Amino acid sequence: MEQNKIPQATAKRLPLYYRFLNNLNQQGKKRVSSKELSEAVKVDSATIRRDFSYFGALGKKGYGYNVEYLLGFFRSTLDHHEITEVALVGAGNLGTAFLKYSFMKNNNIRITKAFDADSNKVGTDIDGVPVYHIDELNEKLEGTRVAILTVPASEADVITEKLVNEGVNGILNFTPARITVPNHVRVHHIDLAVELQSLVYFLKHYPLDKE
Amino acid sequence: MEQNKIPQATAKRLPLYYRFLNNLNQQGKKRVSSKELSEAVKVDSATIRRDFSYFGALGKKGYGYNVEYLLGFFRSTLDHHEITEVALVGAGNLGTAFLKYSFMKNNNIRITKAFDADSNKVGTDIDGVPVYHIDELNEKLEGTRVAILTVPASEADVITEKLVNEGVNGILNFTPARITVPNHVRVHHIDLAVELQSLVYFLKHYPLDKE
Repeated sequence: MEQNKIPQATAKRLPLYYRFLNNLNQQGKKRVSSKELSEAVKVDSATIRRDFSYFGALGKKGYGYNVEYLLGFFRSTLDHHEITEVALVGAGNLGTAFLKYSFMKNNNIRITKAFDADSNKVGTDIDGVPVYHIDELNEKLEGTRVAILTVPASEADVITEKLVNEGVNGILNFTPARITVPNHVRVHHIDLAVELQSLVYFLKHYPLDKE
Repeated sequence: MEQNKIPQATAKRLPLYYRFLNNLNQQGKKRVSSKELSEAVKVDSATIRRDFSYFGALGKKGYGYNVEYLLGFFRSTLDHHEITEVALVGAGNLGTAFLKYSFMKNNNIRITKAFDADSNKVGTDIDGVPVYHIDELNEKLEGTRVAILTVPASEADVITEKLVNEGVNGILNFTPARITVPNHVRVHHIDLAVELQSLVYFLKHYPLDKE
């Protein structure tokens, strides 16, 4: 597949580029320079030019990039015509924040169901998403392959095993636990405490210059 | 400074290594192999060996690494004797999740104050952290240099400007907004929607093998 030739580092930046170009398009902008893009998405312009060359988009000096061309390319690459359903597992504070996160509503990914063990939440819906009991995973997942994991760390491994058994092959893990999965399951791990620790470490050891 | 020689990619993994080794130490383990480490933190063992060589830790074949030596090194490198105070700005669902996130309590970073515009929250505390009104930033920040930004996206730029004016030089940005800051301010950006989009994109375009 042609798209497999895009390096993973470039692939990670696609959603950022896509969102910014979409905003520009909605404002009626026809073209954008790599400098403008660079300032908006905080990626240096040499990297942007290299990334875009993989997409066959060659900016012209003094003109920049054609916004519609890029958008068309990104839409097909990111499969924006195809909706991906996602299950949210753990509807505590963090899970609820996800369900209410409005940007989710403007893209091709939908959180369509949530699971929790709290009987006060089961049977309700949060921002239009129904909450089922965690014991109903096997009935209610119905082919959903992607899950956001926002359960307590102590539950992470047990729940992960259940999700994998039900056919989930992608997990966005927001618990502090490093979960164990079979090789075919992709886990992206975002640990709030580690992110904060990294920021503090970088502040101390890689101070930025005042201009 | 000697520590500046550690590559940034290695530096980003330090908090992960630190946490895992701390757990091992508490369990009374004296040594660990790079294979065990690799499985626990999900980093390949060649990378671990290269990382550790920067710390002057050379594993011995059939013995592995000395847990106490590594921990001592990490403690001094991550400045675990020094507490960093952090302000949380925006005590909605996501902000509250941060305040209740228990791992925070076991390291050298403390969220010591929160800010919100909601008069129902101002004057209360959440898990022991007092909530002040957002208009009190100038009085209550009191030299805090690091902030977690969990306000609505529409408020992100205005609040960021206030934070920077009050001397904040590190921001963990959890809003979808790409905020603009002076050069000396470090921003780490975690966008929940982008993280989810990346996971879905990788699942489609870089499927993992079933062994």
